[in-house]
Amino acid sequence: MAITVVGSVAYDSIETPAGRKDRCLGGAATYFSLAASFFTDVRVIAVVGEDFGPDQEAVFKARKIDTRGIERAPGKSFFWEGSYLDNLNEAKTHATELNVFASFAPKIPEAYRDSEFLFLANIDPVLQRQVREQMPDARLVAGDTMNYWIKDHRDALLQMLKGLDVLLINDTEARMLAGNNNLVLAARGVLALGPHTLVVKHGEYGATAFFSNDSFDTKREGAPPHPFRAPALPLEEVVDPTGAGDSFAGGFFGYLASQRELTPAAFRRAMFYGSTMGSFAVERFGTERLQQLTRQEIDDRFVLFRELTHLD
Amino acid sequence: MAITVVGSVAYDSIETPAGRKDRCLGGAATYFSLAASFFTDVRVIAVVGEDFGPDQEAVFKARKIDTRGIERAPGKSFFWEGSYLDNLNEAKTHATELNVFASFAPKIPEAYRDSEFLFLANIDPVLQRQVREQMPDARLVAGDTMNYWIKDHRDALLQMLKGLDVLLINDTEARMLAGNNNLVLAARGVLALGPHTLVVKHGEYGATAFFSNDSFDTKREGAPPHPFRAPALPLEEVVDPTGAGDSFAGGFFGYLASQRELTPAAFRRAMFYGSTMGSFAVERFGTERLQQLTRQEIDDRFVLFRELTHLD
Repeated sequence: MAITVVGSVAYDSIETPAGRKDRCLGGAATYFSLAASFFTDVRVIAVVGEDFGPDQEAVFKARKIDTRGIERAPGKSFFWEGSYLDNLNEAKTHATELNVFASFAPKIPEAYRDSEFLFLANIDPVLQRQVREQMPDARLVAGDTMNYWIKDHRDALLQMLKGLDVLLINDTEARMLAGNNNLVLAARGVLALGPHTLVVKHGEYGATAFFSNDSFDTKREGAPPHPFRAPALPLEEVVDPTGAGDSFAGGFFGYLASQRELTPAAFRRAMFYGSTMGSFAVERFGTERLQQLTRQEIDDRFVLFRELTHLD
Repeated sequence: MAITVVGSVAYDSIETPAGRKDRCLGGAATYFSLAASFFTDVRVIAVVGEDFGPDQEAVFKARKIDTRGIERAPGKSFFWEGSYLDNLNEAKTHATELNVFASFAPKIPEAYRDSEFLFLANIDPVLQRQVREQMPDARLVAGDTMNYWIKDHRDALLQMLKGLDVLLINDTEARMLAGNNNLVLAARGVLALGPHTLVVKHGEYGATAFFSNDSFDTKREGAPPHPFRAPALPLEEVVDPTGAGDSFAGGFFGYLASQRELTPAAFRRAMFYGSTMGSFAVERFGTERLQQLTRQEIDDRFVLFRELTHLD
């Protein structure tokens, strides 16, 4: 099944203990698309400026990602500059220039409209909702958000959440969104806002999925669905954490979209594929590692994740 | 196989968001013994004061724990007072009174000397080493330590580590001990100091075991042993985190001691039993939950841990 993703395609200047790279191709939709493209067809909706040329286009094309929904606008692409010098788990933002993104009005190409899977990457929840409403027949809708929208655009975010099946956010965001420091209670609070599944990302500790009663997880009838935790891979070097969460989302949602049935078992494997893609993304600056990856490497690492966690 | 454990038997006054309890029976050796007693015979070496009476003795006896090595000394038992009001993952210490522990010189009863398993709970590494040297024939020796010994008693600690097979510490301690912020590299640094296995506890995110080449983990010949991660159970309420790490150690080491062979599979199950015992310990104040536990409850929760992490 094809996925349509809406989100940022951007340039990032990044400094980490491993070095510095200026103007890497980045943005949530870029990481998501590359990661998901190993599993299924991906179609991108975004806006870029005049600085987005054939070299950047080629990155998407090499992975057979549909870029007809990437609008070209006069001006510069979205730009972000950040560093992780003190803490690899949390970026320090030095500059955010919205540029062409400031007046982004997502338009969905006709050819995208039969996408059964829709991913709303982290952008203004008003835009996320506009896209959601233009894709009423999507079978499964997942999305991401961040502290800024939770704190300062709560009403718009709550409206958007009503149209989501799966929300992927980190621990801090889940606690902030629900106003509860206990993760289980926070998850319950978030699940009451719309999504039937909440994936909470724990950075180097992996991610936990929580389910409401009408979620995928119908394995044990009568019993409340229990959570599922995927680990992250202990890595000797994290070169650049940028995009790890978006790559997780791409692996997770891409794998789900490749499955005929959304069974609990498929969902658990999707969590492992999400962690797998996140673990690759951080091995090089920007999207370098995702660009060079092979499906064989992905499946080999999936086996490592199994060995890391399974008793037998 | 029997385990001998040396460590503190103490009174704790604890304040958490769930309430306050004064002078609970606590101490690392107490939590460890209770947790391990569900799997194998446990023998305690500790010192207590005149405030340790038949009621406290009965807690050990109810679990058939051998207390002949608990020495009675004039004065008061070790006392700790702490709170977790801001952060359930880190205690704020308000008072530490060593009392009879200040002049503790561990003596090993003759009846303990055939113990094949030895656990050195978190006390002065000089004392840990004395006990280790009095038990030269122990088949497997594990131990714990804390930031204070790592920072201010490094030489004594390094001497002690040479006699350990398995070290159990938390993330911060592992990074501090190795002087490296990357967990994989920190683990490698710690494993070069003596232990062939390092279990790093991540609090609410579980624990990861790292192995050197001469560790248990001989499953994949020729390949470097890969790490293994056990989750922690997402809990709706953590009443009192005190003793979670010691209970983890008790479940982990108790299960290993109950096994005929120390295979990689036994080791992985031990990690899950460790997490299981830690998850019970925090459900009530002090050792209350461990005192009331049944083996059936433990095995039921072990199944939950499997469901939380396993693909099939």
